[in-house]
Amino acid sequence: MARLNEHYDKLVAGYLFPEINKRVRAFAEKYPGRKLYRLGIGNTTEPIPPSIIRGLEKAVNDLAFRETYTGYGDELGEKPLRESIAQIYRERGVILELDEIFVSDGAKPDIGNIQSIFALDNRIAVQDPTYPVYVDTNVIAGRTGGYNKEESKYDGIVYMKCTVENDFFAPPPNEHVDILYLCSPNNPTGAVATREQLSNFISYALEHKAVIIFDAAYSAFIRDPQYPHSIYELENARACAIEINSFSKIAGFTGVRLGWTVVPKTLVLEDGVVGKANALWQRRQTTFFNGASIIAQKGGVAALTGEGRRECALLADYYLENASIIKRSLERKGLSVYGGTNAPYLWVKTPGSISSWDFFEKLLNESSVVVTPGVGFGPSGEGFVRFSAFGHREDILEAVESIEKNLKL
Amino acid sequence: MARLNEHYDKLVAGYLFPEINKRVRAFAEKYPGRKLYRLGIGNTTEPIPPSIIRGLEKAVNDLAFRETYTGYGDELGEKPLRESIAQIYRERGVILELDEIFVSDGAKPDIGNIQSIFALDNRIAVQDPTYPVYVDTNVIAGRTGGYNKEESKYDGIVYMKCTVENDFFAPPPNEHVDILYLCSPNNPTGAVATREQLSNFISYALEHKAVIIFDAAYSAFIRDPQYPHSIYELENARACAIEINSFSKIAGFTGVRLGWTVVPKTLVLEDGVVGKANALWQRRQTTFFNGASIIAQKGGVAALTGEGRRECALLADYYLENASIIKRSLERKGLSVYGGTNAPYLWVKTPGSISSWDFFEKLLNESSVVVTPGVGFGPSGEGFVRFSAFGHREDILEAVESIEKNLKL
Repeated sequence: MARLNEHYDKLVAGYLFPEINKRVRAFAEKYPGRKLYRLGIGNTTEPIPPSIIRGLEKAVNDLAFRETYTGYGDELGEKPLRESIAQIYRERGVILELDEIFVSDGAKPDIGNIQSIFALDNRIAVQDPTYPVYVDTNVIAGRTGGYNKEESKYDGIVYMKCTVENDFFAPPPNEHVDILYLCSPNNPTGAVATREQLSNFISYALEHKAVIIFDAAYSAFIRDPQYPHSIYELENARACAIEINSFSKIAGFTGVRLGWTVVPKTLVLEDGVVGKANALWQRRQTTFFNGASIIAQKGGVAALTGEGRRECALLADYYLENASIIKRSLERKGLSVYGGTNAPYLWVKTPGSISSWDFFEKLLNESSVVVTPGVGFGPSGEGFVRFSAFGHREDILEAVESIEKNLKL
Repeated sequence: MARLNEHYDKLVAGYLFPEINKRVRAFAEKYPGRKLYRLGIGNTTEPIPPSIIRGLEKAVNDLAFRETYTGYGDELGEKPLRESIAQIYRERGVILELDEIFVSDGAKPDIGNIQSIFALDNRIAVQDPTYPVYVDTNVIAGRTGGYNKEESKYDGIVYMKCTVENDFFAPPPNEHVDILYLCSPNNPTGAVATREQLSNFISYALEHKAVIIFDAAYSAFIRDPQYPHSIYELENARACAIEINSFSKIAGFTGVRLGWTVVPKTLVLEDGVVGKANALWQRRQTTFFNGASIIAQKGGVAALTGEGRRECALLADYYLENASIIKRSLERKGLSVYGGTNAPYLWVKTPGSISSWDFFEKLLNESSVVVTPGVGFGPSGEGFVRFSAFGHREDILEAVESIEKNLKL
């Protein structure tokens, strides 16, 4: 009798986005004429820049002719792309070998799959609030206990509480954990880790022989030179950190699918087992994966040329300007706004002591703006909502105008 | 202290293809002038047909303009593509609902990941010889014991011995198993399951409340109307079978990456839990995956139009003609050749009682042809080698000429 993976039963039903959709649908039915402003989801809206489009076109064209057609590529990523990625790191003083860089079909699959090279009895820690994939994939793998409804937490996971007081980047936990998920610039809070904050985590990881899974998917939005783009800019990170990144936000590749993961061969895990995590991830990828689309990869190479990078920077600037518009507007309304500089997300305190969901309803009903209730990202997200700065400029401008005009505070 | 997944240690080191590469390299160094004919790997060589190229080009072009740009797609697959896939099944009398079809970045990832929706204590069965991914992914997940060197098998897996006597499609096992992996047309043997053979497996699965993972990645090569393309053409398969398929071989998408999996909502697992496997796979895909590349998906839609399908059929015909050329030639040499009709692989008995590896060496040294030793696919592959029919026609013709002229039998 085939039995299903029992750990799926522990998952709280995919509550957040279906619930948002349900409420938005109800609103749309009630007010069929009103335009909705969707600032809930972190999805790119602007077209892919010209030089990258040319790279994608060339890739398609190559597949049309016998002389240039290629079948299966390298499961770990085409060499020119890995070389371009290595070059980006080199400019930041980080030297990586090509077989430490693994190209993938995006950050999310890598974030989900990376836990599978670790034993089930590792104890994990996540920032709270957090991107749900860190948590859910460990629940499904069986690395946690059940869901504790009173605390809105899974048993067995350590939640690092991110608050106003710690600039939404909690310090390392006081207890022992083996694997720590960090995201900077952060989804959902927009907080960006300082060198000191990351340094503290690296010290913790070295002391505990723990590993940091560093999600740098939003690093392209960092403009302030004080913030590291990669954890490897910090000393000793190569001994304890895996880094995951993406072309989604750099180049508008959310639908094209391309990302990468760095697993240093210098990673120290267990006692003295150096290089093994790299070997296991390689084995994982060659067994469960067949490489990112060759078209996406050639587009990725184009995105990392000088011209491509200039175009990508303009794309990020566009969303950052959106963030800035939202931030100024909400602040004019007297709201407390965090993030939104060096990050495409704004983390907004609900007025008074109203809940995330109540403020979500208020924004929807009074100003037709859809956001994401902070509590959906973890218990410490209660009392906040997340604004996403992805959107067409005119929609952003209309949305903030609607908030300024219609939201009753 | 972060600990690694201990099950990786059970894996026999990625032995087969690295070993082939090592021997081929040594040969190339020894005879630097000699042209090598690589009939080892099942990799497409012919360009993607024109109407599908136009679909891919249109997809890239859509991403270049604000009006047509799209970001994240549906993690389960774009609706037009799922509709086109449903239509293909409908023509074979198989009615599927759209939410039973899950689009992916290829058959291999789905084959690897599908086991993760099942509990770890399920007992699995594989055909022997077999595509190694079925075995390795279950080893890594911890669903098996260690590798038994004497038997060349993993403990805890049931190997269904495919031999000349059973037309290389073994009957269901005499013992109880929970999950059975079947591949037809088969990799590596080129055997194609008859309706009766599949029917026997369905009866077994219903009796044992087992699930069949049916790998149909080579179904586009079936020309003989007696053979089912999909297991769902058989009665009751919807109650016990998951089917995985791919655009790799249909449309030359090995590098483009596109496939799909069908998880019927009517699947009966455990006692009376109907629909749950579908729900779990949906949850798995939305948590660990972010959809196949939108470019590949629009190419897939083009491949399933009338024009696209005619072009794809010609592509498959080309490789089938290659297979036929190889088959005739090897038979003229007096070798026993199986498969190679309705399938792109030929399963060739080694002459006399020489081993897979010895015949590999003989073919390489005497005729400069690289094949895959059958023993690499499982213990019952000993005494066979696999020829792949993927290749340019002129290379195939030269390869068989070299065998006919130079191989000493």
